Order: sequence, then C-alpha cells, then structure tokens
Amino acid sequence: MNNQLDQKIEFYLNQCLPRHSFADVYKYGVLPAGKLFRPKLALASFNDSSRDQAAYNEDLWKLCTALEIHHAYTLIHDDLPAMDDDDMRRGQLSTHKKFGQWQAILAGDGLSIASFRLLSRITHPSAQLLSQISAHALGPKGLIQGQALDLSHEMNLSFENLLKTHELKTARLIQLSLVGGALLATPKVETKSLKQLWRLGYAVGVSFQLLDDLLELCDETLSQHEKDINPWPKLTAKCSNKTQKLLKTVDQMASKNIKNELALYYKKTLEAALKGQKNIETHIRDNNQLQPVMSLLNILSKTN
Amino acid sequence: MNNQLDQKIEFYLNQCLPRHSFADVYKYGVLPAGKLFRPKLALASFNDSSRDQAAYNEDLWKLCTALEIHHAYTLIHDDLPAMDDDDMRRGQLSTHKKFGQWQAILAGDGLSIASFRLLSRITHPSAQLLSQISAHALGPKGLIQGQALDLSHEMNLSFENLLKTHELKTARLIQLSLVGGALLATPKVETKSLKQLWRLGYAVGVSFQLLDDLLELCDETLSQHEKDINPWPKLTAKCSNKTQKLLKTVDQMASKNIKNELALYYKKTLEAALKGQKNIETHIRDNNQLQPVMSLLNILSKTN
Repeated sequence: MNNQLDQKIEFYLNQCLPRHSFADVYKYGVLPAGKLFRPKLALASFNDSSRDQAAYNEDLWKLCTALEIHHAYTLIHDDLPAMDDDDMRRGQLSTHKKFGQWQAILAGDGLSIASFRLLSRITHPSAQLLSQISAHALGPKGLIQGQALDLSHEMNLSFENLLKTHELKTARLIQLSLVGGALLATPKVETKSLKQLWRLGYAVGVSFQLLDDLLELCDETLSQHEKDINPWPKLTAKCSNKTQKLLKTVDQMASKNIKNELALYYKKTLEAALKGQKNIETHIRDNNQLQPVMSLLNILSKTN
Repeated sequence: MNNQLDQKIEFYLNQCLPRHSFADVYKYGVLPAGKLFRPKLALASFNDSSRDQAAYNEDLWKLCTALEIHHAYTLIHDDLPAMDDDDMRRGQLSTHKKFGQWQAILAGDGLSIASFRLLSRITHPSAQLLSQISAHALGPKGLIQGQALDLSHEMNLSFENLLKTHELKTARLIQLSLVGGALLATPKVETKSLKQLWRLGYAVGVSFQLLDDLLELCDETLSQHEKDINPWPKLTAKCSNKTQKLLKTVDQMASKNIKNELALYYKKTLEAALKGQKNIETHIRDNNQLQPVMSLLNILSKTN
C-alpha cells in the first residue's frame, strides 16, 4: 500500500506540474516523500468507513496527494531564512538552500494552489464540502494562523496559546486527513461521524506536537532557544495531563485501521523516549509525571 | 457600483480573517484596494451575460473578492526581497517593509488560500468548474509558471518567451475574471462562450502587459535593467504588431460592459503615452511603428 501511495502521489503531482525545468523545484520539495503520516491517516480513515473500497479510489489518491503536497509547501516556506531558517530538511538541503529563495517561495505557493487544484478535481458528491473544509482548515483562520502564533512567539505566552498553536499549526491538517478520508468513503457520510473524526484529529494532532516537544528533550544539551520555548520543563504537570487526556481520547475514539496506523508512530515515539529517557529526566524535575504518558504510549503501540 | 465593490471586498475579506492582530497584515496588503481592474472586469462580464442580475449576486461578490485578494497575494510575494525587492506599493510601504518578511510571506500564503476558500463557498451549480478553472489558471502550470519564467529571466530569451510569460503571469487572472463573471451569470453557460471570453482575456491581458512595458519608456532615463528587459526598443515592430493584433481582437470580441470598463483603462493608457511620447520616441528608433497602436487606443477609449 505504501509503495502504491508513493507512486500515486508522484503521478498526481506530475499532473499538476509544467513540463519545464522549474518542475524539479516542486519535486525536490515533495519527493522522495517523508513518513506520509497524513496520507496514511486518510487512507486508514477511508478504509475504516468504506463499504466499497473501489468506488472512490481515484478521489482518495487525489486527496492523499493534496495532503502531502500541502504539507510539503508548509515545510518549504517554514524553512525559509525569514521563517525558521533551516538549511536541512529530511537529511538533505532545504529547498531554498538547494535552489534559492525565490524558487522556494514560488514552489511553496505553487504546491499550495496545486493542492486545491487536486481537491477541485475530486468527483465525489461531497467534493465541494471537502474543498470548503480544507480551505477553512488550512487558511488564515487555520494552519496559517498557527504559524503566525508560532513566529510571533505568542505561542509561548501561555499554555492555552501553546495548545491553540499546536491545534492550528499541526492538528488541522491531521483533522482534515481523517475527515477527508471518511468523507470519500461513502456517497454520504453523517455529520456526526465527521465531527467525531475532527475531535479525534484534534487529539492526535495536539498530542503529536506535545510528544514532539517531549522528544526534543532527548538531547543532552538544549540551546537557550529550545529551553525557552519547550513547555515540558516548566509546565511538566500541565503537559503530562494534557497529553494523557489526548492519548486516552485517541485510544477510545480511533477505529481499527486508524489505530493500527497510529500504533506504528506511537511505537517509534515510545522507543525514542525510552532511548533518551536519561536525558529527558535531567530536563524535567518531577519525573513521576512522565510515567502515565509512557504507559499510554505502550498501550497505543500495539497493533490489532 | 465601485463603492459597493469596495465594501463587499472588505466584508468578504473580513469573513476569511481571524480575530487577531495578524488580520491587520492581510488587510494592509488588500485595502484600500487599487484599481480593482480584475473584479470590475468580472462584474462587467457578469452583467453582459446575465438575464437576472440578482440571482447569483452573492456568488459574484465572492468571486470579485477572491480575484482581488489573490491578486494582492501575488503583489505581496512579488515585492519580497528575494523576488522583485520592492519597498513601495501603491504609494505606501510594501507589506514586508511595513510588517517584516515572515509576516508578508504568511499573509500572501493566507490570502492565496482565502481566495480558494471563497471560491469553494460559491453556491452556483458551476461552482466546482469555477474552482477547477481557477486553480489551474493560478497554479504551477499557470500564473506561478509565469512568475518562474520572469524571475529566471527565461522571459527575456525570445519574444515567444516574453509573450508566454505575459500570458501566464498577467493574462491568466484576467481570463479568469472574464470567464468567472460569465459563469456565474446564468445557471448554465455554453462552453463556446467561455472559450471566447478566455481568448478575449488573453488579448486583454497580454496587451495590458505590452502597453505597461511601453509606458515604462515614458521615463526620460531607464536603468540598465530596464533597458535590458524592455522589449520595445529592440523588438519595436514585433511589439507593435502583436499589440495591434491583440487590441483589434479586444475591439471585435468585447461585449458592451466589458468594453466600457476597458475604455476607462485604455483612455488612461493613451493619455499617459501621449504625455510621455517625447521620451518614448527617444527610446525607440522607428516611431512610425507606434502610430497604429495609438490609433487603436483612441478607438478603444470611447465608451458607449
């Protein structure tokens, strides 16, 4: 399935691109694909909701490609010198380091629009609803606002701001993946199911980012900037309690294929946390707070 | 009508924005609006095709706002230091000069997505077709590719490349304005009419940019860069012939309201060209080539 996913993303990406050397810039930012976390969640959600898996297959691949190339656009722009200023991405030079800044800005712009082009070509009866949800989740009130909260450092002013930032910047695209997959699985899906998947996506996305913050503490020494913005050392109880709550929600709400897909990710997270546990414990005063999170990760690591 | 257009754009823009200080960055890039050339063309096209003007009015305002904010996004990103590096826009500081670079990058990203959000909320039966045409016209094979040809200087390698760049970078959004307005005017518009408006938009858009190049010569002295890239001094006959051909197409194809809307623009263009004629003539060897263009501008300046 993963191999097929790779191939389909490459196929639909190529459909969006001009026959011109600039196509290489787009491809560099997308391929070879990363973990494909979002498309895989969309697939899993589709499979959990579908009664006839063949019916809307091509629409599903379009959605998967749209999710992946939209994610790639955010990474390309995030890496720019005026944003996070990262020279490396997925073990290779970031797009602006490889090709130049205007190339990276344009490629990001193009991938963002290409994701909406793909969504607009979905033939499912709910295609327009999916486009509406997508543009809302990813636009100025959604993902982009999360980036604004992050880059303006408003994210660091309170725990509530941190959660809001993680919700908008990280969870929105994951929520869209789960909702989008289910939406395409049947001719008409109930609003109630979509709302539940939206809630599940919130739990997956916000805990994803909190766990990402936790794993940052696996490094022996943190930069001053990392110390300043990592919430775990200063707000250990809040971070732990919130992560527990979200992981319990995931355990309760996720259906079979979604749970199995997530299990692979939680397994890796748990392994990394155990490997770096000694370092994590030097950064956090009250280590007892971590144990419930580790136990939940252990439970969620099991596939069915 | 213009006042109403301003108000509607402000209203629908506000709908897209978060209640947060970052909304000011978006608004700064859009308001006060410029000439509103593209929304006005969409309105004119709607009025020329409509039998019942009230039927899809709100959809029309959404389209107008989408066109304007998408145009604003391209200007915000074009002005960035890594792109055209312009400090001023419409007589005030460009967005990145006023707020900073990451703010300008994010605001552009957000406006681009907001334009697709508005298009996704159009209720007209052809809404999805309009979204498809938009994303195609503005994406990696469309407007973005025009910007890539411009910034890579491939635009300057041949007259054909120049025309291709003008077509993608400038005409596509104008073509979309004309086609979009007509598409919303009746429940179902004939493909033939849309194709004709697409051709008309090509003629308006490419001649718009060629005339813009011509008006650049109204300056007494040109920078070396301007001398290098302005096509008129070196390719006077080609530029003149192509512009004439395109303006004749406009004269033949444009319907009443579109023609009247364009007349205002052609009048200003003619006045500026006459005012700067002496300087233009110092930059161009064979001035006889200009006369037919001026005559056509004169004809097209008349409103009905």
